[in-house]
Amino acid sequence: MKSLLLVAHGSRRAASNDEIRVLADALRQQAGSAYGSVSCAFLELAEPSIVQGIEACIRQGAQEIVILPYFLSAGRHVASDIPGEVETAQRAHPGITLRIAPYLGAAPEIAGVLLGLAGT
Amino acid sequence: MKSLLLVAHGSRRAASNDEIRVLADALRQQAGSAYGSVSCAFLELAEPSIVQGIEACIRQGAQEIVILPYFLSAGRHVASDIPGEVETAQRAHPGITLRIAPYLGAAPEIAGVLLGLAGT
Repeated sequence: MKSLLLVAHGSRRAASNDEIRVLADALRQQAGSAYGSVSCAFLELAEPSIVQGIEACIRQGAQEIVILPYFLSAGRHVASDIPGEVETAQRAHPGITLRIAPYLGAAPEIAGVLLGLAGT
Repeated sequence: MKSLLLVAHGSRRAASNDEIRVLADALRQQAGSAYGSVSCAFLELAEPSIVQGIEACIRQGAQEIVILPYFLSAGRHVASDIPGEVETAQRAHPGITLRIAPYLGAAPEIAGVLLGLAGT
């Protein structure tokens, strides 16, 4: 079974963390049968942590987990912090395939989405 | 003349700010003739500031400026800080039309873009 884990920064503001949970719900609906589970985790300031999120996927039966960074720039969080957490989980669960997808800001569609918001 | 001003948070990391400038270049190319100018500004930690960015658009001849928040969640920056800066600029330039577009995280296409990155 393949799982999708959306990873956001996490906020002190509960409403911002709830936005991520709502987005994970939308991903689950749009993904159809592509993933056996779709959930979210947070780098800091909210739960579950990335390792906790990965372990929840494994408990649900995931053999492969795609970690999807909901971040706009390739800073320290994307380049180092998220890979570090994933490596920790990988060491604890060597038989599970963990893959980090490109971060949101790297998507070529972003410019078009922005122009749509601007109302051109 | 209508201008588009992409507004990002700004980072201590120069490469992150440069990512925004590259994105503004991509927006300029994709927008075609929809805007007389496309540029970027930063809420903090980098220049130009939002007010400086708006005033640069005005110097270039903008009568209408669309401010486009490159943010993922509707936190304090989107709900309060950016509108505050725009209001400051509006008071200084009452004859110019300033409009804040929805922030990136509000775009309905985001879930689809994320699923594309995950490689479903």
